[in-house]
Amino acid sequence: MAVSIPSSLGRVLEERFEALAAMTDKPGQLDRLYLSPAFRQACDQVAAWMQQAGMTAEIDAVGNVVGRYEGDGSDPPTMLLGSHIDTVRDAGNYDGTLGVLTAIACVQALSDAKKRLPFAIEVHVYGNEEGVRFPTILTGSRAIAGTLDPTTLDAKDADGVSIREALRAMGCDPDAWPEVAKARANLLGFLELHIEQGPVLEAEDLPLGIVTAINGARRYRVKVAGEAGHAGTVPMALRRDALAAAAEMALGVERIGRSDERLVATVGQIEVTPGASNVIPGEARFTIDLRAPQDEIRDRAAAELVDDLKAIAEQRSVDLDIDPFYEAGATSCSAALVSELEAAVERAGIRALKLPSGAGHDGQAVAALCPIAMLFLRCKDGISHNPAEAIDIDDAVIAVRIMLDFLLHLDPERLQP
Amino acid sequence: MAVSIPSSLGRVLEERFEALAAMTDKPGQLDRLYLSPAFRQACDQVAAWMQQAGMTAEIDAVGNVVGRYEGDGSDPPTMLLGSHIDTVRDAGNYDGTLGVLTAIACVQALSDAKKRLPFAIEVHVYGNEEGVRFPTILTGSRAIAGTLDPTTLDAKDADGVSIREALRAMGCDPDAWPEVAKARANLLGFLELHIEQGPVLEAEDLPLGIVTAINGARRYRVKVAGEAGHAGTVPMALRRDALAAAAEMALGVERIGRSDERLVATVGQIEVTPGASNVIPGEARFTIDLRAPQDEIRDRAAAELVDDLKAIAEQRSVDLDIDPFYEAGATSCSAALVSELEAAVERAGIRALKLPSGAGHDGQAVAALCPIAMLFLRCKDGISHNPAEAIDIDDAVIAVRIMLDFLLHLDPERLQP
Repeated sequence: MAVSIPSSLGRVLEERFEALAAMTDKPGQLDRLYLSPAFRQACDQVAAWMQQAGMTAEIDAVGNVVGRYEGDGSDPPTMLLGSHIDTVRDAGNYDGTLGVLTAIACVQALSDAKKRLPFAIEVHVYGNEEGVRFPTILTGSRAIAGTLDPTTLDAKDADGVSIREALRAMGCDPDAWPEVAKARANLLGFLELHIEQGPVLEAEDLPLGIVTAINGARRYRVKVAGEAGHAGTVPMALRRDALAAAAEMALGVERIGRSDERLVATVGQIEVTPGASNVIPGEARFTIDLRAPQDEIRDRAAAELVDDLKAIAEQRSVDLDIDPFYEAGATSCSAALVSELEAAVERAGIRALKLPSGAGHDGQAVAALCPIAMLFLRCKDGISHNPAEAIDIDDAVIAVRIMLDFLLHLDPERLQP
Repeated sequence: MAVSIPSSLGRVLEERFEALAAMTDKPGQLDRLYLSPAFRQACDQVAAWMQQAGMTAEIDAVGNVVGRYEGDGSDPPTMLLGSHIDTVRDAGNYDGTLGVLTAIACVQALSDAKKRLPFAIEVHVYGNEEGVRFPTILTGSRAIAGTLDPTTLDAKDADGVSIREALRAMGCDPDAWPEVAKARANLLGFLELHIEQGPVLEAEDLPLGIVTAINGARRYRVKVAGEAGHAGTVPMALRRDALAAAAEMALGVERIGRSDERLVATVGQIEVTPGASNVIPGEARFTIDLRAPQDEIRDRAAAELVDDLKAIAEQRSVDLDIDPFYEAGATSCSAALVSELEAAVERAGIRALKLPSGAGHDGQAVAALCPIAMLFLRCKDGISHNPAEAIDIDDAVIAVRIMLDFLLHLDPERLQP
């Protein structure tokens, strides 16, 4: 019996997106925070869909839902698919959920055709990718990868409830967290389909693209101190205008970002004091966010940027303070899996566009366990984390078809190093 | 008997600055708002000093103190000297007061020498130059110039007290406001000595300078609307970053300001939304303050600036809204009086530096009545409207010497058109 995608898939996916969207902690908008009642409800629903797709399913000690579709032979290797079902506040319907429902749809197609592959498939549905309720992120995927810091379980939400307590309230046994970690042996990799959260695929008129890496980031807080003064009485030549200096620096940030298409660089915040229309600003504070798919590109750009800002400050006789308050390394996707995905996309008659992920994802944690790969799905206007988040359901069907084709062509032998 | 400056003048001026500084509405700082008890106290003190200097002195219907030192002959012309004694909140000791005390010192020297000039001297001490207590400015000088809008007397302070009521409480008769206006005939001009409120004289190592004009100003509120987006996922080429556009515009403002040394141009406020380090700003709002000593220079610069901003907006595909919310014309100082002052400064062996006034002054109102002139005195670090306001008392003595020399050399015939 041939493995195929039923013509009803688009409708089924739409119904399931709707069903999950209704599982919210706050009527009228989608809030499904990690370990909340709505989150628990979604876990149960997802586990039910997994079972319907021929999988075993369990909710683990940290609130992940893990489904398994057995492979052929004895002790077959395992391929991981999945995403997350926690959301931000006032979220859209597709961030995370898309990867979960499409992974289950792939297994459903195999199960409907009674098809076993030379590897097992596990569908992982992670908790706390968003990091909204508790001051920590990637809790579920880190536990799976064996990199969870156990003190994380003591992290508390705004009401003083710890992750440990919330897990118990949900019926999980947080003390069993070490058993959540998967063995590294015999894992082929992890594939996540996620909405792009950016405008590239829409601009390229492509339903999906292949992620090359999850970008690393550096963030800085910059303070420029010049000299406040009367906007009418201080001649231009005698000014040390903090805002003018910051403006020149902001354009420097943009120039660095534009210098290499793999980079993005952003000034997202700026404030000046005193901040009156007739007073020359004495101080300006702004932020810089710099990202690249490879750490060396990012670090080279960061060094150039810092030199740039120092030169501007010196030339304008203003004081400069640069505080690097955040750093995260880049996570590369597996070249072998990217190559397999490229072939599957091309078999579908679609140009295989490769692009980096500017946002963070569970793959950053899972990379400690096994090779990772991601597909991005086109989303409307690049909008995410917003009720306006939207996809074309036909794109999702195309993605399921390609993921299934990828799985059917995946030869575990070829992935061995 | 020769007219001369007594060696004690520096000490006398210091004592009088101290005495006026003690007349405050708020112990511990200098607040002497228009028509307050401290203001009334200062009016009485100034009137007493005027009488001591051989002048008649009266407080007029709107709270100005007007002193007169008669001239030679019958119906001689009149030269006006003066400044204001109201202050901002938490003020310095010299803004306004300097012009009042040095004007009285000039007359004192004439009176001590029993010297009459071929013109009378009136010392005008205006109320409400600062416009702090009531939502209106230049009340005293406008009344003198005959340009007071009588509805101004109904302007109310934060406690709901009108200027009219406050005048009555101070013992003035507000209904007599039309009589405050001076006749235009036979006025030689108005000379005010004021602290520079800027850094030019200090940088030029000069005790004083001659004002060419009180700058006109235009102010704008600018709104730039681009598109917010994820700082990690939107490639540089697809961005419409409102802050980057605003930064380029702010540098454009600076470039225009630098294009002509008679111009100053300032971005004093900037705000962006959403305003998070990892979000591309979708909207930026900033102010522009543009000033020049001649309206045509200012207007030409304003037109160039608006063209510049439009070009930047177009090139970056952002929407631009420019709201011109304030405009004031420039007030030129009398070329004849400037020339007389230049001669007096040079006779004192000092380089006669001419400079515009970036800040507003009573002369803007008095210019409707007669030719005006101003001298600026060097002040420490260009600071004003602040307790740190400071002058070198020797500079003030030099200024009195030069003003007196200017008066002694002033030939009314030469000033006739």
